[in-house]
Amino acid sequence: MSLTANNPDRKSWLHVDKNSDFPIQNIPFGVFLTRDDIITIGTRIGDTAIDLGALHQLGYFEGIPLTDDIFLQDSLNDFIADGRKTWRLVRNRIAEIFDAENSELKDNKKNKETVLFRLDEIEMQLPVQIGDYTDFYSSIEHATNVGTMFRDPENALMPNWLHIPVGYHGRSSSIIPSGIPIHRPQGQTLPAGSDTPIFGPSKLVDFELEMAFITTDANDLGEPIPIAEAEEYIFGLVLFNDWSARDIQKWEYVPLGPFLAKSFASSISPWIVTLDALEPFRVESPKPLKPQLPYLQYKGKKSYDIKLEVAIKPKTAKETVVSKSNFKYMYWNMSQQLAHHTVNGCPVNSGDMMGSGTISGSTPDSYGSMLELSWRGEKPVKLQDGSERKFINDYDTVIMRGHCEKDGTRIGFGEVSTELLPIYVPKSNK
Amino acid sequence: MSLTANNPDRKSWLHVDKNSDFPIQNIPFGVFLTRDDIITIGTRIGDTAIDLGALHQLGYFEGIPLTDDIFLQDSLNDFIADGRKTWRLVRNRIAEIFDAENSELKDNKKNKETVLFRLDEIEMQLPVQIGDYTDFYSSIEHATNVGTMFRDPENALMPNWLHIPVGYHGRSSSIIPSGIPIHRPQGQTLPAGSDTPIFGPSKLVDFELEMAFITTDANDLGEPIPIAEAEEYIFGLVLFNDWSARDIQKWEYVPLGPFLAKSFASSISPWIVTLDALEPFRVESPKPLKPQLPYLQYKGKKSYDIKLEVAIKPKTAKETVVSKSNFKYMYWNMSQQLAHHTVNGCPVNSGDMMGSGTISGSTPDSYGSMLELSWRGEKPVKLQDGSERKFINDYDTVIMRGHCEKDGTRIGFGEVSTELLPIYVPKSNK
Repeated sequence: MSLTANNPDRKSWLHVDKNSDFPIQNIPFGVFLTRDDIITIGTRIGDTAIDLGALHQLGYFEGIPLTDDIFLQDSLNDFIADGRKTWRLVRNRIAEIFDAENSELKDNKKNKETVLFRLDEIEMQLPVQIGDYTDFYSSIEHATNVGTMFRDPENALMPNWLHIPVGYHGRSSSIIPSGIPIHRPQGQTLPAGSDTPIFGPSKLVDFELEMAFITTDANDLGEPIPIAEAEEYIFGLVLFNDWSARDIQKWEYVPLGPFLAKSFASSISPWIVTLDALEPFRVESPKPLKPQLPYLQYKGKKSYDIKLEVAIKPKTAKETVVSKSNFKYMYWNMSQQLAHHTVNGCPVNSGDMMGSGTISGSTPDSYGSMLELSWRGEKPVKLQDGSERKFINDYDTVIMRGHCEKDGTRIGFGEVSTELLPIYVPKSNK
Repeated sequence: MSLTANNPDRKSWLHVDKNSDFPIQNIPFGVFLTRDDIITIGTRIGDTAIDLGALHQLGYFEGIPLTDDIFLQDSLNDFIADGRKTWRLVRNRIAEIFDAENSELKDNKKNKETVLFRLDEIEMQLPVQIGDYTDFYSSIEHATNVGTMFRDPENALMPNWLHIPVGYHGRSSSIIPSGIPIHRPQGQTLPAGSDTPIFGPSKLVDFELEMAFITTDANDLGEPIPIAEAEEYIFGLVLFNDWSARDIQKWEYVPLGPFLAKSFASSISPWIVTLDALEPFRVESPKPLKPQLPYLQYKGKKSYDIKLEVAIKPKTAKETVVSKSNFKYMYWNMSQQLAHHTVNGCPVNSGDMMGSGTISGSTPDSYGSMLELSWRGEKPVKLQDGSERKFINDYDTVIMRGHCEKDGTRIGFGEVSTELLPIYVPKSNK
């Protein structure tokens, strides 16, 4: 099945800025509300959003086996369930329709008015109804930093870490798209030196710089996915801010893992960039430091070179970039994560989401959380406006961005941007 | 809003055995495939299943605000989302329709043929599409037993246990209804004395005797549910077998909690018994051993006296009851669990499921897992056929049952029954 949509020489008749994350080679998928308050599935080229529901109704996907309402939905789940062959046919067709050489839509003013939207005319939604969400812990630099801070620098990694792509089940219901503000969570924390917890606002709210992949229906109960097939079931990726309350986590997480410290909110970028679009940016994964069991062994390049950054924007000041990292640093790649997740027969469905875990690099300016950047608060991070941060303050907005770049082609994710508001006050108390 | 459906003096014109779990005072909700392969929402009186979709089409719910297709669905999620007032109207109306004094349906042979099914004519399905599933760890006897075995008998409970209804996020996709066989999972385990894991079938597959409650839409992101309101958002309960692979769990669970040791399968009883039906069986919860934070303090009786038992049935022998426990033993009740779960603003939706954690009593014959019953394998459990079990063998069926009984009324859950098959063999290897 060809990936003609990836042709680097193709130009679109839609305007695309030189540094846009969304050239015609990207063609991501998302869900948005239109100016007429209709919900639809769409894509984006440059700063133009494209209503795929309308495009389909106008007959532009003729010949591709799609149900009539496949794009007129509030989530991509059904389209993703159609499988990789269909994703490719649709992406290739979109590339053709918007190719600078093709006048089919370009010269049809009426159809263009129906199909095209400026970004300020639409409101991005969560792109999938997330059934199950799993978070991995796959950056060796992050796991080592955390182990060094909280346990023993000589034995920073847990004994299982180099054998298992460690992960845990997370909460789907609190995953939100970019742009929705969240409240500082309240909960139990244990004051230093005390054996009795107190209740109140978390004092250590943090971001975690992650990426997450979205799956299609992959397997039945009981049936593992062989690692060589794993990528067949990955639709695409988003940027992922796995908000964390460090003080709540510290008190609650032994022995069953993080719970309320994570489930108050997690935010994702709204456009799913397909694995197909990322094909030119494959790279080798880090060399294993210990032998890995056969079900985790793979051939070929299974990592992706995606440049990442995190910025903090105080309410009344400009943003400061506080971290620059890369998705390729992950010790365990997505194929290993998915093979591990299903080796016990756990079913993976269309719309499931799997987070990478915090993506830290080897240098202090590439750490993926304030916990690491400020080293537990010991080294406050300076912002451009002269203020300092150990963790995230009320009214700070945390912005994550990511893109690939090679031979003049740039494929990006846009951003996930989330403002932290003070604690929630019930309406009756306002 | 009255609970006339609970009237203990009411008799049905449908036959109900003396020891049935499903008298007319129960009226649970489930989803089944009919003899015509139509999926519908239904209830059950005695051994008769009742098609609520058909009953609604025939006009028997006139006057109750319900959409036309509310029962013609493959899950109860939308009905549950209608809220407690609607659940009560429907349950009361069903009690009226099947009251021995009411001939409306009783004397309408044609309608009865459409609406009523023998149990062998239907196939029970998963009653809800479970969005998020959380498992608590709320039995002090279970937590103490596990702590005694694996840590220190003098400090068996973790420091947070008496302050927090400890819980963790679980996997929804592997939750199945009673009757579906499962495969012994494979995974990584660490042989005693080794520092290198091996891959293979779990040798320590166990059940966990739990109950689980199903919620309705409760709160928006950021908004906690006050404990006094928590029960408003609980639709009902099921029996829950939280299958566990103890050897996989031991190697994987530090520091982020159980993962593949749990996500290979969890089974539930197919009929959701409403909290309303359990109203007569409220009892006091155990007295707190330490003061609890205000958001966890409640008034009144928030526990339920539900007798539970677990039986093991080898392939070619009769079953042996290996444990008798009670839902009322739970140290943390459902109201506390739900108040805790949402205190950080985590949203709870219609169809979410929350497990109690293993329900053990104080005596060895009331322990809720083989881990405890066989005390880590040191005291094998004798079965009626003379064989012994430390954990669960291939081709064993584990059956859990539960019911309440008081003043001559018995309200029960039926059973959750699951056979453990050997490891999955890919079709190409068969």
